Amino acid sequence: MNFDSVFDPKSIAVIGASRRETHVGYGVLKNLIEQGYQGEIFPVNPKTDVILGRTCYGTVSSIGKPIDLGIFVVHPSDVMISLKEAEKLGIKAAIVITAGYKETGDAQSENELASFCNEHGITLVGPNCLGVINPGIRMNASFARVMPKAGSVGFFSQSGALCVAVLDYAEKLGIGFSKFVSIGNKAQVSEREMIEFLLNDSETAVIAMYLEDLTHPHEIIEIIQKARHEGKRKPIIALKAGRTNAGAGASASHTGALAGAEESYKAFFLQAGIIRADKVSELFDYIKAFSRNPIPKGKRIGIVTNAGGPGVLATDEAALRGLIVGEFSKETRTALAEFLPKTAGVGNPVDVVGDADALRYRKSLDAVMSDPDIDMALAILTHQTMTEVEETAHAIVQAKKQTGKPIIACFMGGTSVEKGIEVLREGGVATIEYPEESANALSKLALYSDYFNREDPKRFLFENVDREAVSMILKKAREKGRKWLFEYEALQVFSAYGFPVFATEFARDREDALLKAKKIGKTLVMKIASEDILHKSEAGGVRINVPPEDAGKEYDRIIHDVLEKFPNAKIEGVLMEEMAERRGFEIILGAKRDPALGEAVMVGFGGIYVEVLQDVTFGLAPITEDDAWRMVRSLKAQKIFDGVRGQDPLDVDTLVEMLGRLSSLVIDFPEISEVDINPLKVFSQGNGACVLDARIILI
Amino acid sequence: MNFDSVFDPKSIAVIGASRRETHVGYGVLKNLIEQGYQGEIFPVNPKTDVILGRTCYGTVSSIGKPIDLGIFVVHPSDVMISLKEAEKLGIKAAIVITAGYKETGDAQSENELASFCNEHGITLVGPNCLGVINPGIRMNASFARVMPKAGSVGFFSQSGALCVAVLDYAEKLGIGFSKFVSIGNKAQVSEREMIEFLLNDSETAVIAMYLEDLTHPHEIIEIIQKARHEGKRKPIIALKAGRTNAGAGASASHTGALAGAEESYKAFFLQAGIIRADKVSELFDYIKAFSRNPIPKGKRIGIVTNAGGPGVLATDEAALRGLIVGEFSKETRTALAEFLPKTAGVGNPVDVVGDADALRYRKSLDAVMSDPDIDMALAILTHQTMTEVEETAHAIVQAKKQTGKPIIACFMGGTSVEKGIEVLREGGVATIEYPEESANALSKLALYSDYFNREDPKRFLFENVDREAVSMILKKAREKGRKWLFEYEALQVFSAYGFPVFATEFARDREDALLKAKKIGKTLVMKIASEDILHKSEAGGVRINVPPEDAGKEYDRIIHDVLEKFPNAKIEGVLMEEMAERRGFEIILGAKRDPALGEAVMVGFGGIYVEVLQDVTFGLAPITEDDAWRMVRSLKAQKIFDGVRGQDPLDVDTLVEMLGRLSSLVIDFPEISEVDINPLKVFSQGNGACVLDARIILI
Repeated sequence: MNFDSVFDPKSIAVIGASRRETHVGYGVLKNLIEQGYQGEIFPVNPKTDVILGRTCYGTVSSIGKPIDLGIFVVHPSDVMISLKEAEKLGIKAAIVITAGYKETGDAQSENELASFCNEHGITLVGPNCLGVINPGIRMNASFARVMPKAGSVGFFSQSGALCVAVLDYAEKLGIGFSKFVSIGNKAQVSEREMIEFLLNDSETAVIAMYLEDLTHPHEIIEIIQKARHEGKRKPIIALKAGRTNAGAGASASHTGALAGAEESYKAFFLQAGIIRADKVSELFDYIKAFSRNPIPKGKRIGIVTNAGGPGVLATDEAALRGLIVGEFSKETRTALAEFLPKTAGVGNPVDVVGDADALRYRKSLDAVMSDPDIDMALAILTHQTMTEVEETAHAIVQAKKQTGKPIIACFMGGTSVEKGIEVLREGGVATIEYPEESANALSKLALYSDYFNREDPKRFLFENVDREAVSMILKKAREKGRKWLFEYEALQVFSAYGFPVFATEFARDREDALLKAKKIGKTLVMKIASEDILHKSEAGGVRINVPPEDAGKEYDRIIHDVLEKFPNAKIEGVLMEEMAERRGFEIILGAKRDPALGEAVMVGFGGIYVEVLQDVTFGLAPITEDDAWRMVRSLKAQKIFDGVRGQDPLDVDTLVEMLGRLSSLVIDFPEISEVDINPLKVFSQGNGACVLDARIILI
Repeated sequence: MNFDSVFDPKSIAVIGASRRETHVGYGVLKNLIEQGYQGEIFPVNPKTDVILGRTCYGTVSSIGKPIDLGIFVVHPSDVMISLKEAEKLGIKAAIVITAGYKETGDAQSENELASFCNEHGITLVGPNCLGVINPGIRMNASFARVMPKAGSVGFFSQSGALCVAVLDYAEKLGIGFSKFVSIGNKAQVSEREMIEFLLNDSETAVIAMYLEDLTHPHEIIEIIQKARHEGKRKPIIALKAGRTNAGAGASASHTGALAGAEESYKAFFLQAGIIRADKVSELFDYIKAFSRNPIPKGKRIGIVTNAGGPGVLATDEAALRGLIVGEFSKETRTALAEFLPKTAGVGNPVDVVGDADALRYRKSLDAVMSDPDIDMALAILTHQTMTEVEETAHAIVQAKKQTGKPIIACFMGGTSVEKGIEVLREGGVATIEYPEESANALSKLALYSDYFNREDPKRFLFENVDREAVSMILKKAREKGRKWLFEYEALQVFSAYGFPVFATEFARDREDALLKAKKIGKTLVMKIASEDILHKSEAGGVRINVPPEDAGKEYDRIIHDVLEKFPNAKIEGVLMEEMAERRGFEIILGAKRDPALGEAVMVGFGGIYVEVLQDVTFGLAPITEDDAWRMVRSLKAQKIFDGVRGQDPLDVDTLVEMLGRLSSLVIDFPEISEVDINPLKVFSQGNGACVLDARIILI
């Protein structure tokens, strides 16, 4: 994809340039002319001769020479006409600012636009966007009035209005951008293309984005994976709207985007190694923290403060966010004790006490930063009687220069610390206004370190998978017009995919039951099979502990009991399973297809209290072996897996394998919309697991 | 307690006034003289004649006339001497700024100080504090350099350094104070006295505090309860350090305070109806929100925004924080549709679209605020091409004046919205920088509305409580030098306090077992009783389903099995209980004494997975009936209580009663340090509950 013509075009046509100052077509042209863009500019407007001192062209065709980039701000109905003309002139990229496409219900026009650009190799940003800014060459190809500082942050956003606010906050916070892009409706260039471009853009060190939805998650995961392989340490930060159902609803009505379920997004960000900002404020905190710091080696934080209270508050937050506020090495404590007053604490946090001057502060920070047991530092300052605000800021800047470890400085207060913050900012030190937010931002540096240092993903490779058998079962169900499988069919599907399933037979009458029960030869569970019976137990359709010789008798009783409660139920027969005898732990495995992100697989605390306990975790299929382990290890129930209160540890290897097999199954058969295995009984280590109950719903 | 002399003294002696500009004794005197205090000031310093143009007194006695307030900044060893002299002059209040007491290990001097003040009716603030500020009379009796704006916020803090930062932030955020107090080591005046004073202070509308620990929780709860009864709507906001173990550790080493467990504090804040700020930033957000708004009637929020994305982000956060982002009434939607452009959404959030002017914004906000289904509003603005920032700010100020409902305005960005924020602030509208934090602050207004509208607490009153029996059991254990009870003793204790306990007998040998088993006459559980056996099952010391006639035989087997594994175990005998036969749900009840906050009672999801599931909740004993219901209702397991998946609802009334009885027990017997009832089997509605296993540890 040609992004050169988007970010560094030799020539730009503004199609829909306007004389009216309130019109977007005026703003875009003005920004290009006045903010320093050096290439050729061609305003296009059939009704005007000159705008802002530039001669206008009546049509695109009349420009008569090649154009790199076209910016479209005309009425939606005129965009395609102009675009076709521009294509004739060899246009390479188009920014369609014009709104009135998918977001107002017109998906067709948007698709036409995208198809045309795809066919003709034109890079398309938008429609319904604010435009693009490349501060490095002072090109403001947007209708945002501000040209941000040049810097190392590559930012893109699905919301134009948020772009405006981001530019405004960034100015206040001293954040500079490498590229700034409003991707709008993402008809062609989406987060996938932007992430790939920015990962390869030499001017970008940190990638940040605002999203309302997302597609092609696995391609993005692979793009990031590839960059990581190439040693590109480029943290990616995402602010994603729609964390709740209420939010998702609002999002859908806002952009016409069908927001995926939060759990799937959570899984995606984790699998992709993208840092999630939950709030706008966090987005800026993380941008500051990442763009002004190296990546730490680990998660051990040292805190230096001239005020005890804020030190405690920062410690709290650091611990809550997974950082380790550990002991300093003996050397560090000895070094600190040498110059700190007796009332100071040489523990972590180091309280250098209220009367600390810049020198004492500096020496303490140096001691902490050079401790091999410390990976990063938080420097907190409040303005007390003896405090040297600016000098301390300079001292921190110097300390930062001498270390390869991250530092965040939190100068608490307002006007009295303003100049210190200015010094820190100019010296390239990340500053955050409050101690807790500072600790949180540092925790994200450590999180990215984890992400970056992940081992190469191990992919699941399974034997004993019989696709053909599953195809047949699904085909049969579809042929009968069913959108779901009988339990015995579901069990057959899982069996075909290598899941251990107890001996199971399907009986169609009393004699059949007795015959097949004897074949199983063990105590049985018998369950009614009927598409009209959803809750089998409540319907009287389940018997446990049935000796094989009683199977015929119980068959009749089950049918009788069920028909008594549901006289019109259409009954297929009775499913007979070997009783689970070994003591195992009940796990739920599941899968559900999300329209945007694809199939998500789930693992969690099973049994009848699944919804109550909500101890479940999700992964986007296909998952790697590492993903599966991460999922399992993130459950509260994992303490049980290791063996609690004298119980044996469970066979987690098998559980992880089953999760992988489930992932394979739902990837291989996209017609499966929902899966429930509840319970999967997991036995003690080395003894495997077994599917006891299962459900499959088709699309 | 005399607070008049602290906050409005006619005369002040500065004991330890200094000429050296870096000395605290100089700072305090200078602040008093130069910042506008109107009363008499007496500097005391034996080595100097004049400081800052004021004649110095060599000793306190030499002042020779009555003084209202003494501020002590002398060496700790001189404080008592000067204080005694001051007492002779009739001093009514003392602010001891001097440090070097409990926080550095000298609890004795601090206790002497407090005792002397208590005996002589002197109000004591400190020691180890920053001082006191009363902006209303421009009295800065502290060494903080800034005199804050007068306002309605009463603030006090256990950390002096934090006070300085708070003053500095407050100036930037435009927050004014009624009283500003650094309470230091709290030798006499603690949070209890401050809360009581501020609740009754006519200049204070909102109370805010920073704490590292807390004592007398129930007295505070009653003070707040009383004020509520008197119709005083004064929200109380607390920032409490030590939310984690790491934090609590740092806090303890910092102030010498023994920080209580987070769970107990959480319970306290909830029972007291105090709004908890988790971060410094939240403290300010909540102060702004409460001091500039009325209390809402409910939790239904209306969001008006000129940018979709931020609206979605605010919606997410509002929903996560328990607010309802519901539909507007039909009237409101009709009204909005009349003047909003077609591309705008009349749902909630209302997206007034990027080109909205102040008038459109105002009309939308008015429509939302007058909706009877809306209790509060969030007004979000980003600076887009057509946006009238200041005019919109004025419009919001006007809208606010016409409504009795809370509004928070979030003008997103930096310089481009600065003037608007100024207008809002001057107009008395709370402004918060980011949309999510704005929604969160509004959720706290709704939370306080809940707190304020709580019904009068119903106290538990129990019959069938036999204190004497419990006393005897505890006495016997103490006499034997035991710090714990045998299970059968624990069961007797609970039985004496009205807990249903299955028929239980204690057998000392084989014959005894058989005899008593026949007396019970039902299938039994038998459990080893030995102080050396902690985990009875693992030791082979438990048998279930024992028919009474086998009790003798099983007695011997249990003893044999246990001795095989623990040959040196001292065995008391075997406990025999009727088997629980009714299907019940396993609940854990517990209690633990916190050194600072007293006894906390716990209820939660019981059984063997308590630690894994962590579905437990705490209350500070004594709990009211309402507390007990809140505790039970806040469990995830409460869905089970109501009956899930076709199961019967459980006997929650009994569960609540048992929780109350446990609270009574631990209050009546302070020598109980820890209690575990696990499980309490709770049966279906109307069928009660039963203690199956219990443990009591003594102090």
